[in-house]
This record gives sequence, structure tokens and C-alpha cells, in this order.
Amino acid sequence: MTDFADLVDGYQRFRTSDWRRQHDRWEKLKVGQEPRVMVIACSDSRVEPAQIFDTLPGEMFVVRNVANLVPPFETGGGYHGVSAAVEFAVTQLKVGEIVVLGHGQCGGCKAALAGTFDKAERGQGGFISDWVHLLDGARESVAKDHADLKSEEAREAMEQAAVRTSIENLRTFPFVRDAEAAGDLEIRGAVFAIDDGILRVMDEDGGFTPAQPRAD
Amino acid sequence: MTDFADLVDGYQRFRTSDWRRQHDRWEKLKVGQEPRVMVIACSDSRVEPAQIFDTLPGEMFVVRNVANLVPPFETGGGYHGVSAAVEFAVTQLKVGEIVVLGHGQCGGCKAALAGTFDKAERGQGGFISDWVHLLDGARESVAKDHADLKSEEAREAMEQAAVRTSIENLRTFPFVRDAEAAGDLEIRGAVFAIDDGILRVMDEDGGFTPAQPRAD
Amino acid sequence: MTDFADLVDGYQRFRTSDWRRQHDRWEKLKVGQEPRVMVIACSDSRVEPAQIFDTLPGEMFVVRNVANLVPPFETGGGYHGVSAAVEFAVTQLKVGEIVVLGHGQCGGCKAALAGTFDKAERGQGGFISDWVHLLDGARESVAKDHADLKSEEAREAMEQAAVRTSIENLRTFPFVRDAEAAGDLEIRGAVFAIDDGILRVMDEDGGFTPAQPRAD
Amino acid sequence: MTDFADLVDGYQRFRTSDWRRQHDRWEKLKVGQEPRVMVIACSDSRVEPAQIFDTLPGEMFVVRNVANLVPPFETGGGYHGVSAAVEFAVTQLKVGEIVVLGHGQCGGCKAALAGTFDKAERGQGGFISDWVHLLDGARESVAKDHADLKSEEAREAMEQAAVRTSIENLRTFPFVRDAEAAGDLEIRGAVFAIDDGILRVMDEDGGFTPAQPRAD
Repeated sequence: MTDFADLVDGYQRFRTSDWRRQHDRWEKLKVGQEPRVMVIACSDSRVEPAQIFDTLPGEMFVVRNVANLVPPFETGGGYHGVSAAVEFAVTQLKVGEIVVLGHGQCGGCKAALAGTFDKAERGQGGFISDWVHLLDGARESVAKDHADLKSEEAREAMEQAAVRTSIENLRTFPFVRDAEAAGDLEIRGAVFAIDDGILRVMDEDGGFTPAQPRAD
Repeated sequence: MTDFADLVDGYQRFRTSDWRRQHDRWEKLKVGQEPRVMVIACSDSRVEPAQIFDTLPGEMFVVRNVANLVPPFETGGGYHGVSAAVEFAVTQLKVGEIVVLGHGQCGGCKAALAGTFDKAERGQGGFISDWVHLLDGARESVAKDHADLKSEEAREAMEQAAVRTSIENLRTFPFVRDAEAAGDLEIRGAVFAIDDGILRVMDEDGGFTPAQPRAD
Repeated sequence: MTDFADLVDGYQRFRTSDWRRQHDRWEKLKVGQEPRVMVIACSDSRVEPAQIFDTLPGEMFVVRNVANLVPPFETGGGYHGVSAAVEFAVTQLKVGEIVVLGHGQCGGCKAALAGTFDKAERGQGGFISDWVHLLDGARESVAKDHADLKSEEAREAMEQAAVRTSIENLRTFPFVRDAEAAGDLEIRGAVFAIDDGILRVMDEDGGFTPAQPRAD
Repeated sequence: MTDFADLVDGYQRFRTSDWRRQHDRWEKLKVGQEPRVMVIACSDSRVEPAQIFDTLPGEMFVVRNVANLVPPFETGGGYHGVSAAVEFAVTQLKVGEIVVLGHGQCGGCKAALAGTFDKAERGQGGFISDWVHLLDGARESVAKDHADLKSEEAREAMEQAAVRTSIENLRTFPFVRDAEAAGDLEIRGAVFAIDDGILRVMDEDGGFTPAQPRAD
């Protein structure tokens, strides 16, 4: 099982390969980052955007949290980690795309659907419960269409609904709406299904279809 | 410049390489994740834990936000994304280690140190400002030791102080303290300096020294 | 510039990544190899089959020499390195495919076409000259179609002719012919053009067309 | 099992990753190759130098044949594939190092030690037999020290002796000797043991010890 010593082994590999060999790329990165894409993904260890998308250092500005959620725009106080990251990406880095990446077998979506931690205290699931309340609307919409919330179909519908929810919430941020309206920003959704390893991309109607290879 | 079409290209590579070739590993991952390590890292595109640590899918449960911050334990309402992820990792996945990974050239730390967005409105840096107020204490401690807050030394001190702050805040969570006391959880800090590509690991006194190769 | 110390660095990476992580694969490889494909490629440093084809250890039995040449079947004495490898692959390992991989900018093909070392002594190109005499027939056929042997077109034609020559020579080996006739062996040709990075695959008429992605 | 269609899949990955991303490196390689190292390795599918040494395109000029053999300098006719490659590497590319890479579980060494194909006809092992006669001297020296030629110890001794034999034969080439004497060329030996995944490097006395990480 991987532990910190293994991570340090991995760092030694990074040192003598990517760091040393990609000298020109790192020389540019030392000066500053200029990613064109922001990715909002789940913390799940199986859904590492750099692995699923096979990217290089410098290519994606990445937020990861339980269930790839974006809270809605709020003017009140408190710590708004995702909002800060979105503000940084859109207004400072001026990324051209935001990708919300959901995934199959998502523990957060499952907990939201089942209400697993609904009355749990903090330290026993209470934080998770509060966080996935962001998916209350998604849950309702899934419940309308699926009698059995424990079915595979309901779970998949919930994972897609979570992506749509985060995208809707992104659009509650005035600066996001402005950038989109100005044609400076595109928002995309996708779900990586762990079951079959397929990435499904959201179309304009909010449906999801398997990603296709680029035509040559 | 990398855009979503490039990410889909990368996914096509993932499909015909890791997904197809690591069939046994993915068969296990389909059933569920069992990462032993949680990593809390910055959203910065240059500090991708999977690249710096050269890991495989399934090895790290990852939170990423601006400046790799952990807010302190709070019992009040609101959306506590990092707290939810820590609760999920420690009480549900029962990870054995949490690594807070800071980095050089951190825009969030720089903004905290300079107070760049101190009076900015939401959408002009206000969210960032609120978020990096988590580093107020760190900033004070750095200011004590460094007359020139714009110096390289102050910047580096701030990046290390941010890691220490997140670790202190982790320890305000009762379930984190309990797991540590029971010997079930270790908390580690590290900073990846983009300037020289070196990973510095926090020692018991909160100082940082370059990671060493494992003795054979 | 890469030297042996760099190769040993690379081996250290291999040790802590592929060797350690692909335990199951290497456990099988320890018992013996069972490659299904033999590749005959040039020694040129830019045309590494494992990189062009992105393979894993155990997948290809590989011969590499100047200009990816196969001498014809001979019953006389002497050291027949390529013949020994083909015999080993076809009769002992029972590979199902042999791929002759040519490439653009091939120094050996260029020397054959220009007769660069035609009268050179051993140690000044004499060995190269003798070796690329295997391409005398190819040169003639190219000379028929190309007035200017120094043209790009002639060079490319020669690189393709070299692949066809090796395939013809492969078919002078009775055990190769037998395996092909029995449907146990397929022989394929391809050329990797360094200029545009495109792999062209030989069709049944000996022409070459860009490799196409597999239909899903 | 990997077949040609899988190799073409791998090429599609190469196209959208290394080829596209390492534009600067490939722009240089298009002009010509300048490897500093020549590697002479076995055709065995498990001992791919680019994987064991984790190299990039352009770094190694590679010869591969059964049992990583170099025939001695000969002035007679015939096709001398290895000699041509050595001549090309040393006199045209002016490499600074030649590495002979042997390996454990070597089928060619085993056949040489056991005389497996000693009286086989061509097509039934005759080519292999002729080729591994290059190891007759190595076999004799192993037989002196090992009563049981089927023992693990004898096999390992043979694999090391094969490397020493190739190195001795390299030194029968006048232009190799000259380059070595002038300090322009170093010759090294190593054996990759498939059993334990360890690379052992030849010292000045012809003994082999595990490769050590570079001191920082």
C-alpha cells in the first residue's frame, strides 16, 4: 500500500525525469502558470484528472473536493474555498474553459442520494452531510424519475445531476456569467464511469454521450 | 495551449493504455477505493500531486484548493468542503497519512502576504481575500522575522507557514486528534519549490529539509 | 547529453516504478517470455519501437540493426545474427506477427542509395558498405523511378523499398514460408517518417498509407 | 496478447503525446541523431533498454540480437550486421560509450551452455546454434568453475561471461581500440537480472555489482 515513503520515491523519479528533461517547459513554469483549463473534480483517488486526461504540469488549474461540487454564489462571510478558486481562475488566470468532472461510484453522490449521514454529528459524517446538501435539488430531480434510489440507474442519474448542479451554481457567479457571455469562457461537463472506464461528455441539453476521438 | 479537446485526446491515450493494460488494478478499483494517503494541495497547475509524486490511480485521496488550506473545525452551518473531505478520508476511508503539500511561487500565499485583495469586492478578488484570511496568523509570524515582506525569504517563509497552519487546523478536528493519538494517522508537511524543483519535507520542529532517497 | 550515469538514473526510476508496481506482470515474465510480435527495426536512436508503439516489457521480441535489414536465407557458415533471431522467434517463441519497421532519414538507406562507403575500408565504412549491399536490388528499383537519387522522393522510396526487401528476404526462409502458409504468421511492414511523425503501414500491394485509429 | 493492432494503438498515443508535446526535441531530431551512447542488448522482449533505462527518443543507438553478441573483427566477406552498426556508431556518430547489456533467463545463453541446438538443422535451431557458437569460449570458462552446467550459478556465470565476450570482441575492432586509447570511447558491461529486477554493472575486474543511485 502506498504511503509517504512511496510518494518520496515517486518524487525521486520526477526529479531525474520530468524535472531534469523538460528543462525548457519548467523554465517557463518557473516564471508563472498560464493554464487554459480549470478542472473541478472529486477527491476520489480513482479519478485523478492528470491521469484520466494524461496531462503535463502547467496544463490544468484543479479544484478537488467531495463530489466535485461548486456552492452557489454567496455574499455572506465564511470560508468559500471553491468560490475563491473559481474567482482566481476566471478573473486572474483568465482560463478559457471550466470542466466539471463527475465520476461513477461516487461516495458523495451515493451519500446524498441515500441520506446516509443525514443526522450524523460532525466527526461521524456531519460535515459530509452538510456538504452534500448542495445536491438536494439534484436528489429531488432524480427521485422524480427513479422509484428505486438504490438502483444503478438512479446512481448514474445522480452523478450526472451533480455535474449539472455544479454547472448551474457556477453560473450564479456574476463574473462567470459575464465571461461566458463575452465568449471568453466555456463551461463543460463530463462523467468518468469507473465501471466501464468510459468518459461521457455533456451535450447542450445536459445529456451525456461517450467522448469521441478527434477527427484527424 | 491545452484545451478540452486536448484533454479528450489524453483520455483516448488513457483508454488504450492504463485502462486496458492495468486490468487487474482497475478490477479492484471498480469495487471501491482504499487509498492510504490523503493529500491536500494547491490548485496551481504546476503542482499536480500525481505528477510530483508519480502515483497511480487509487493511491491518493486528494483535496485541492487555493494555497492548500484547511479551515479550522467549526460547528456552525455553511458549506465546509475541506472539512467534509477530511472527515470522509479519516473516518470513512481511514487513511493512515495526511500530507499537506505547499509550493513555491504560490499566488494565494503571495496575496495573503501582500494583502493584494484586502478590500476587493466579490468577483474582483473578494473571495480570494476571504479565503486567504486563513493565513492571517501565518502572515503575522512571517512579519515578525522578515522586515521586507516582498523578499524571496519572506515568500518562502510564508509558504512554509501556510503548511504549518493547515496542519494546526487539521488538529482542531477532534476525530483527527483522536486518530493521531491512537497511532492510526500521521500528518506530514512538504513544500515543492518550483524554483529549484526540490521537495522539502517538514521535520518535527516545523523546519523543512530536502527529501532524501530511501536507503536501499 | 545522455550518458551511462543517466541510464543508471533511468534504471532507478524503473526499479521503483515499473518493477515494483507491475509485480504480477513481472512474476509472469520471470517464468518466461511469450511475445506475440517480433519487430525488426533500425538501430537509429530516434526509432525506438517501445516508444513509437508505447509498449510494455514482454510485448515485442526485437531485432535492431542498421537499416532494419534481413539477409536472405543462407545455408553456408558464418554468423547469421538476424537469421538466428528470426529462427528463435518463429520456431521457438512461435510469434504470430513479424513487423519490419523502416524509418525516415535513415542513414543506412541514404548510404545505400548514394554508395557513400562503396570503396571504404573496414573501419572507415567498409562494414556499413557490405551490410547495405543487401539493398542493391532496392536501389536499382528506386533508380528506375527516380532520376535524382538525392531527392526527397528517392530517399522515401528507398526507405519503403528497404522494408519490402527485408520482407522478401524473410520469405526466403522455409520455416517462415511454412508458418505463413499455415496461417500461423503474418508479416507486416511500416515506415515511421521522422519528418512528420507519421507511421505508414504497408498494404498488400506494397504501398504505404498512414496508420488509422482502430474503429471503436 | 499484444498484436500489431495494439502497436498501432500505441502509436496513436505516441502521436498525441510525445510527438505533439515534445515539439522542440523532435525538431532537433528531425535534423539528425546525436546519441552519445550505443547499447548492445538481447532481442528478449523483457529486456527493452528504453524501458530498463527509461530513456527518451534520440538517446541511445541500439543493436539487439540473440544474447547481445558481438562477433569478432573479420576482414572476410559476408553480412556483418553488428560490425556495421559498431562502425556506424563509433566512426560516424562518434558515440562516447558502448554498453553491452546482458540479462538473466537468457535463452541464447542457456542454449549455448546446454548445446541445445548443436546438431540442429537450419530452421530447427541451426541458425541459433551457429550464432551462439560465439559463446564457445565463455562456455569453457564457465565449465571450469561449475560442475553442474544446469545450476543457477552456471547460468548466471554464463550471462556475465557473454557480456565479457562481447566486450572482448568489440576490442578486436581496430577503430574501437583506437577510440578507447584516445579517451574518446568507454566500454561498459551490465546484466539485468529478471529474477530480482536488479541491474549489475561490470567493474574493472570483470565482476558485477548492483548499480548504485547517483550521489546527489
